[in-house]
Amino acid sequence: MSVANKGFSQRSAWAADQPIGYLMHKALAHPELISLAAGFVDQASLPVEATRSAATALLQSPDMARAALQYGTCAGDDLLRSQILARLRAADGTNAVEPKLEQVVLTAGSNQLLFLLAEALLDPGDIVLCDAPTYFVFMGIVKNMGARAIGIASDEGGMRMDALRVELERLEATRELHKVKAIYVMSSFDNPRAVSLAPERRPQVVEIAKAFSREHLVYVIEDAAYRELRYAGSDAPSVLSHDRACDQVVYAGTFSKSFSPGVRVGFGVLPAPLAAAVLDIKGNFDFGSPHLNQRLVSEAMRLGLYEPHVALLRDVYRGKLAIMLEALDTYLAPLGARYLRPEGGLYVWVELPASVDTAVNAPLFERSVEEGVLYVPGEYFFSHESGVPRSFMRLSFGVQSGERIARGVQGLARAIERTLG
Amino acid sequence: MSVANKGFSQRSAWAADQPIGYLMHKALAHPELISLAAGFVDQASLPVEATRSAATALLQSPDMARAALQYGTCAGDDLLRSQILARLRAADGTNAVEPKLEQVVLTAGSNQLLFLLAEALLDPGDIVLCDAPTYFVFMGIVKNMGARAIGIASDEGGMRMDALRVELERLEATRELHKVKAIYVMSSFDNPRAVSLAPERRPQVVEIAKAFSREHLVYVIEDAAYRELRYAGSDAPSVLSHDRACDQVVYAGTFSKSFSPGVRVGFGVLPAPLAAAVLDIKGNFDFGSPHLNQRLVSEAMRLGLYEPHVALLRDVYRGKLAIMLEALDTYLAPLGARYLRPEGGLYVWVELPASVDTAVNAPLFERSVEEGVLYVPGEYFFSHESGVPRSFMRLSFGVQSGERIARGVQGLARAIERTLG
Repeated sequence: MSVANKGFSQRSAWAADQPIGYLMHKALAHPELISLAAGFVDQASLPVEATRSAATALLQSPDMARAALQYGTCAGDDLLRSQILARLRAADGTNAVEPKLEQVVLTAGSNQLLFLLAEALLDPGDIVLCDAPTYFVFMGIVKNMGARAIGIASDEGGMRMDALRVELERLEATRELHKVKAIYVMSSFDNPRAVSLAPERRPQVVEIAKAFSREHLVYVIEDAAYRELRYAGSDAPSVLSHDRACDQVVYAGTFSKSFSPGVRVGFGVLPAPLAAAVLDIKGNFDFGSPHLNQRLVSEAMRLGLYEPHVALLRDVYRGKLAIMLEALDTYLAPLGARYLRPEGGLYVWVELPASVDTAVNAPLFERSVEEGVLYVPGEYFFSHESGVPRSFMRLSFGVQSGERIARGVQGLARAIERTLG
Repeated sequence: MSVANKGFSQRSAWAADQPIGYLMHKALAHPELISLAAGFVDQASLPVEATRSAATALLQSPDMARAALQYGTCAGDDLLRSQILARLRAADGTNAVEPKLEQVVLTAGSNQLLFLLAEALLDPGDIVLCDAPTYFVFMGIVKNMGARAIGIASDEGGMRMDALRVELERLEATRELHKVKAIYVMSSFDNPRAVSLAPERRPQVVEIAKAFSREHLVYVIEDAAYRELRYAGSDAPSVLSHDRACDQVVYAGTFSKSFSPGVRVGFGVLPAPLAAAVLDIKGNFDFGSPHLNQRLVSEAMRLGLYEPHVALLRDVYRGKLAIMLEALDTYLAPLGARYLRPEGGLYVWVELPASVDTAVNAPLFERSVEEGVLYVPGEYFFSHESGVPRSFMRLSFGVQSGERIARGVQGLARAIERTLG
């Protein structure tokens, strides 16, 4: 018997055909390729010792071990939640707003928080404003809900506040402002450009969100996934720290990049009513992320193993970034490529001469594969309704060794040379 | 500034007001209560030694450790997925269908799988048929999607196939059959009654689902969360094993009950197209459940630590079940209570005399709290549109010690006596 219609939901159709699937398929089918595409973290510096010590300490005491192996709560481990708030206070300074424990929700990576936020906020047809370019998984989440991501012009200081205001005014004029549920910004070393939101724009984005919260609240979702991976310059207080009333900004963080993606603990600091709504949905989803992992991260912090690990990561990635930039200077700059020189994060955003199309179905992509390299085409990071430039690519220096990064960039240079003719 | 409307989604309203919230609030506010309500597992038998050994083995080799601490894939660890299929083959017998690796998806508990299935299948207004009574979290998930759960008469052999057929015919007559996306059955020791689907009904439910797959497939979701917790009698081949074409049945399992809820690894075996749809959504959600936890469970199995642990659990729970039944025989039977004597699972389903209302807003519930005991009112397990009997309660012998189980049942008896007047 065969029934053609599988009976899948509308959501299912919206969720399908994520562009990244093609890339992952390529990577799996050609394991010999040097992937400068994957957003994986450095393999050699994964916290084997720290995890071993934390696991040993955690499992040594039968009482602590049993607590970790039992169900936790939906919001997550209290101790880790306080440790997160303490770290946030330390990073943002003592004058900042002090969110309360009940505003903190632990998730499986910050990605889960983004999905839960989208569930809690977005109806089909709703709108989220984000950078152009922005994190493609976030755009996938928005699409998953049948909602729209509209790209806002963004420069080396992140989202342009004048462009944000103009877009909100336009949406108000076309009577679509009520559909705008959130403004999504990656405040530190964004994906794909490793650009940070300029300090003076941080209070502004909160003010603008407040000003346009007419029929309902327009939230600011501050994705700070890469905040701890800073290799130069100095940190600025979060967007969250400018939300005096604690009612407008969601702060999303994660230990996936700064500790281990396999442990996969992320978190959000949310306005209390939104935290409650997210927990209602999370209660149906998994009634709490794995307790053991939360206790592991908490224990690593308590034992003083976390900070030194982050310091080590900064050194490792600083070195890899330097290698990638040097290779780009040597091999790609002469071909007319331009790129940002980031102070943190895991990516370098490269703009090729306008005649070179980076899309998967354009010649360069296949030639790069022939030369042994994978990159992420820039088109994936732009919302289709906001115009998609074709000459960008994202290169990651996260997972590959220095030697392979350099070799990968050389392969890319050969592919570009062949494409430039 | 205050904006009354929070801008939450329709989903958010559907997800809100889960009945269990009140119970959890009570339990937290009165930690001195003996909770026969919580679905937690036995504390003393949590696998401290096994987890320690598996963690040590896993983290000893730097290469294995790093692999576990890196991102995994969206579908989950290949080795654990094969181990799951091997166990399933062993349980179902060699004549059974052999699902393929790509049909297996690892999730954070089987609950996450149920949510992802609902996302993939249910549009607002869609229908799922389930036992009356059924697992209330599953009904919450269905409600979360704006869909409807319709209860089917169910006896000591689980869902009645005659009643299922009658309801499907009725829905066909009212032109609602196209809304029916799935039939949900807990095949072993269900929640709340610890009833198993009778062996002869297992092929029947597949046949009926096939027969009514007119415009689209009607899936059978077989929730086997408690399958390994059998203390008497013998296991029957799964519903899945009767799905020769591998296109109709989803099998949901978990290591939360049989190993550790804090490690929280669950899984699904799905028809291939549905697995793909679920992975599309999971790709947006968390692109894979924590890799470390999957490797831990896999390692515990490889080291031969899993089977002995399940055997230990069976002994522990067999003893606790006997204590609960003895206390019920002594204290509740004389008051006219009737209850099933389960062969597995974590629950005893009690029916009180018709004059006693078990609802949270009826006198018995408050009196039980006064007598130091919490139970789950039976009403939570029934879909509102299918009629809600008022004299049932679910008692769990999972987390409490034998002594507290006996004391809890005595407290309950006092509360019932006071209510019977």
